[in-house]
Amino acid sequence: MAVQDSMDVLNGKWKISILSSICYYNKRRFSDILTDVEGISNKMLSKELKELETNKLIIRTVLNTQPITVQYELTEHGLTLKTLIKNLTDWGIAHRKKITEQQ
Amino acid sequence: MAVQDSMDVLNGKWKISILSSICYYNKRRFSDILTDVEGISNKMLSKELKELETNKLIIRTVLNTQPITVQYELTEHGLTLKTLIKNLTDWGIAHRKKITEQQ
Repeated sequence: MAVQDSMDVLNGKWKISILSSICYYNKRRFSDILTDVEGISNKMLSKELKELETNKLIIRTVLNTQPITVQYELTEHGLTLKTLIKNLTDWGIAHRKKITEQQ
Repeated sequence: MAVQDSMDVLNGKWKISILSSICYYNKRRFSDILTDVEGISNKMLSKELKELETNKLIIRTVLNTQPITVQYELTEHGLTLKTLIKNLTDWGIAHRKKITEQQ
């Protein structure tokens, strides 16, 4: 099932939130993503970013600042996720409304 | 993050594949979903279906057959997932092509 391929890439608690953060700001530093994505640890963020890199969704740039900063941006392939993330966000809002309405 | 609400509902290895199976056939029996979704166990499918029911995405109907059969279909709210599942499927196909191209 091809839908499973998408979910394998986007699965887990953090990936979509990380991609949304990078997607929203176009370029985003590691430290900024750490604050954007509530509750994620430094170690977990490094692991998730590495997986997203392996899947060709983001690219990593080391900036020659003092101290050194590492920046991430979506690849062309990663950008194709933009609409999907928008749809997921919209659906999330509608779903939350639906569920809270009926409680 | 609203996008996290969507992922919380759709997360895990099986949910999207189960929803795709029900979505594709409109109405689907438990035994059919079991064969549609490769590798899922009877126990896991029951658990996932219960969660989808709690999230108001599917409804369960017991058919008065011999032996009794249980059938599932998407609720109106669940149907709003149709486009999202289609987008996820399309993206999955494009992603697989991208990754296999570069190996």
